[in-house]
Amino acid sequence: MTPERFKRITNLLDKRQPDLTVCMEQVHKTHNLSAIIRTADAIGIHNIHAIYSTQSRWLSNGRASGSQNWVKVVEQPDTATAIKQFKQQGMQVLATNLSDRAVDFREIDYTKPTALIVGQERDGISDEALELADHHIVVPMYGMVESLNVSVASALIMYEAQRQRLVAGLYDTPRVSDEIRHQMLFEGGHP
Amino acid sequence: MTPERFKRITNLLDKRQPDLTVCMEQVHKTHNLSAIIRTADAIGIHNIHAIYSTQSRWLSNGRASGSQNWVKVVEQPDTATAIKQFKQQGMQVLATNLSDRAVDFREIDYTKPTALIVGQERDGISDEALELADHHIVVPMYGMVESLNVSVASALIMYEAQRQRLVAGLYDTPRVSDEIRHQMLFEGGHP
Ligand SMILES: C[S@@+](CC[C@H](N)C(=O)[O-])C[C@H]1O[C@@H](n2cnc3c(N)ncnc32)[C@H](O)[C@@H]1O
Ligand SMILES: C[S@@+](CC[C@H](N)C(=O)[O-])C[C@H]1O[C@@H](n2cnc3c(N)ncnc32)[C@H](O)[C@@H]1O
Repeated sequence: MTPERFKRITNLLDKRQPDLTVCMEQVHKTHNLSAIIRTADAIGIHNIHAIYSTQSRWLSNGRASGSQNWVKVVEQPDTATAIKQFKQQGMQVLATNLSDRAVDFREIDYTKPTALIVGQERDGISDEALELADHHIVVPMYGMVESLNVSVASALIMYEAQRQRLVAGLYDTPRVSDEIRHQMLFEGGHP
Repeated sequence: MTPERFKRITNLLDKRQPDLTVCMEQVHKTHNLSAIIRTADAIGIHNIHAIYSTQSRWLSNGRASGSQNWVKVVEQPDTATAIKQFKQQGMQVLATNLSDRAVDFREIDYTKPTALIVGQERDGISDEALELADHHIVVPMYGMVESLNVSVASALIMYEAQRQRLVAGLYDTPRVSDEIRHQMLFEGGHP
């Protein structure tokens, strides 16, 4: 590894936010997955989660411009298992939901450990996720269209988390464990 | 038109922001165009602009979930003509750019009349747009990937504009002209 690359990776690792994650329920379109992964990388998420009920899978085909090396996609067997894991890690669980019960996404405190659940392109989030979540959140819309693209909605929420975490100084000191650090230096350093 | 539909459209028109627009330079992928149109609708933009140098065109194929009826895509012959138009309308012109010269997108005052220029998926924004723009803006990234998806980057900036305009009360009173109002009621009311 060149010294420049080593430095670049170390800088990236120093900004990683291990207590922030996104979990995608049945998001199937490659361009949406890729866009979500790119945004996750950009705000410092190193692990995202995917739930698929069928055999269809996320395929690494270069659409995410290499971010696959920097953001790990963990497959979860089902929504309940995934949410249980997040809660065991002390995370608040946020379900994105278009109903009136949901609060404005900007009202949430994202400096807390947080897992964001986003739903399928056509059908939205599952009832199970809505039931198990700590909060339902919505991105306010003033038009005729009923929903945003899923990668757009997730990005808006991830960047609100980034904004709050910048203010709170959470990007100022390294926060990833040595284990993740070594793993990423090893995997990312050898493409 | 049913009374409910009439009311829904009127409510939408009351939130429209006629002095805010997005201009896409050579954005070719349908899913990106659709996502940008959906987001524009959601924050109250009724006109967006597209520049294509080739014969390829934006195709209305339902991917934007009907928002084509509510957001008009104006084709511009070239970047210079488009930017000249925006300036004649008193708009500040913002070029999204990944260089160090760009300022953080959150530092801009979006309550001013504003045109946002976004660039092509692969090559980014043109030198001409960079030269003619009033500001270069960037969405800060802390990962290894060099850029965000274009519909994600535009959405983050459009929603920052929405946030500032909400605070400033720009969604509280109707702002579209009677001409646009009648046109949209006519076109949108008859699908
Ligand atoms: C295209 S939407 C699904 C629309 C679906 N018809 C529904 O009613 O939920 C796909 C996902 O994007 C996210 N999403 C889209 N627009 C949103 C908004 N305005 N607020 C919060 N999440 C949103 C949610 O995760 C949603 O499950
Ligand atoms: C995929 S990017 C283009 C990348 C291209 N290689 C470049 O260097 O500009 C497509 C467009 O998305 C927008 N974009 C992507 N990431 C951005 C960011 N972090 N800040 C501002 N705009 C961004 C810009 O409009 C850019 O022209």
